[in-house]
Amino acid sequence: MTGWLVIAGLGPGGDSLVTPEVTAALAGATDVVGYIPYVARVADRPGLTKHASDNRVEIDRSRHALEMAAEGRKVVVVSSGDPGVFAMAAAVFEALEAGPEAWRDIDIRVLPGITAMLAAAAKAGAPLGHDFCAINLSDNLKPWDLIERRLRLAVEADFAMAFYNPRSKSRPEGFARALAVLQEACGDARPVIFARAVSTPQEDIRTVPLPEATPEMADMRTMVIVGSSQTRVIDRPLGPIVYTPRSVRV
Amino acid sequence: MTGWLVIAGLGPGGDSLVTPEVTAALAGATDVVGYIPYVARVADRPGLTKHASDNRVEIDRSRHALEMAAEGRKVVVVSSGDPGVFAMAAAVFEALEAGPEAWRDIDIRVLPGITAMLAAAAKAGAPLGHDFCAINLSDNLKPWDLIERRLRLAVEADFAMAFYNPRSKSRPEGFARALAVLQEACGDARPVIFARAVSTPQEDIRTVPLPEATPEMADMRTMVIVGSSQTRVIDRPLGPIVYTPRSVRV
Repeated sequence: MTGWLVIAGLGPGGDSLVTPEVTAALAGATDVVGYIPYVARVADRPGLTKHASDNRVEIDRSRHALEMAAEGRKVVVVSSGDPGVFAMAAAVFEALEAGPEAWRDIDIRVLPGITAMLAAAAKAGAPLGHDFCAINLSDNLKPWDLIERRLRLAVEADFAMAFYNPRSKSRPEGFARALAVLQEACGDARPVIFARAVSTPQEDIRTVPLPEATPEMADMRTMVIVGSSQTRVIDRPLGPIVYTPRSVRV
Repeated sequence: MTGWLVIAGLGPGGDSLVTPEVTAALAGATDVVGYIPYVARVADRPGLTKHASDNRVEIDRSRHALEMAAEGRKVVVVSSGDPGVFAMAAAVFEALEAGPEAWRDIDIRVLPGITAMLAAAAKAGAPLGHDFCAINLSDNLKPWDLIERRLRLAVEADFAMAFYNPRSKSRPEGFARALAVLQEACGDARPVIFARAVSTPQEDIRTVPLPEATPEMADMRTMVIVGSSQTRVIDRPLGPIVYTPRSVRV
């Protein structure tokens, strides 16, 4: 079998955050598959066919990519950020596991990318410099009860928290509930970072104390990071730096 | 002030995982500061002074970098992986907060990198494809009780878990205790990934069921990822794929 399948992370948006490994894979591909705005980031060239599809069809898209690779094509599935973090890699493996036995012989590789939480954290300082967790707040993939339980346990563990998909179009009320749970469970004024469209021309980073955070501060392009009880803010003329120290003193 | 300070992530080891943004910052620097093996990864060139220091002197190194930037030099502090994840960014901000007021005027930026857990996850499949947490197991930065509490809460939240620094040279017994806690608290055969020296010539990836994991499977260059209760293994002639599905079914 001469075809292959690469699942590649394009990073949060800026071209200077795409790894050379991903650039090389795209240069060798015959087909690029992905969500419309991510496929649009790949330059056209002779010999490259682009297959752009809408959101919410991740499994169909994955099957199509696997079929083409099984037929001998060189296929790159593009993801925003890192493909392994709330993105296309798990979808492709779900399709692979449920698909024909022959697909298990496909040469398949995942190429990491700069995931949104790390790009957002870098812009704010180092809020994830100590133990932390990452939670997808979109509740079309799991029940709200499970999200709320995870939020409460994460507060109890004193993790900093990074939230992906805080406000989905279909269920915008989830983030208001999450914020209310956090404001009650944390009971302090730890910093919350709203990082919108990081590394694009629309980038906007805003830090507020948890009691002042409101649901409207996030939209579908926003990454939200909530500090732990140890997270600190350094005030500066150039704008605040938010960081979580490496050590917890006893 | 014409100097600047950049805290840059070099990724896990391979040059093809260094972002163009980091490469450009290094090309414009007058000084590179960091731990000996990371500074060694930066090519020599006229006009660039390298300041390599040993491990465990992160705060001294940070002060030195801030002093040089305040004097007008263009300084890059290099970190392995991502500088904001158990690396140099938090150390620099600790030094900045404790240092002279004038340091708050320094032009300072953090440039993200491919952190070890995401490089390791990509090699194994997509074990971090659903909610997860990242814990530094080195207990010279926090008490063991706190580590054990976090492990138990992470199991209760059913997070996949990524462990940095599982076996430090000074306290190798911590990882044996962590594994024992996990084996008891999880009570199942979920997969554990030992990913050593990812993206270097010494790379070695091994997946075992949790009950078969032993402390000797990790050393100082190993990243350990433990699946959630939902994590699956796809057996293949080319080697297993470990992934955590995007959804939790009710």
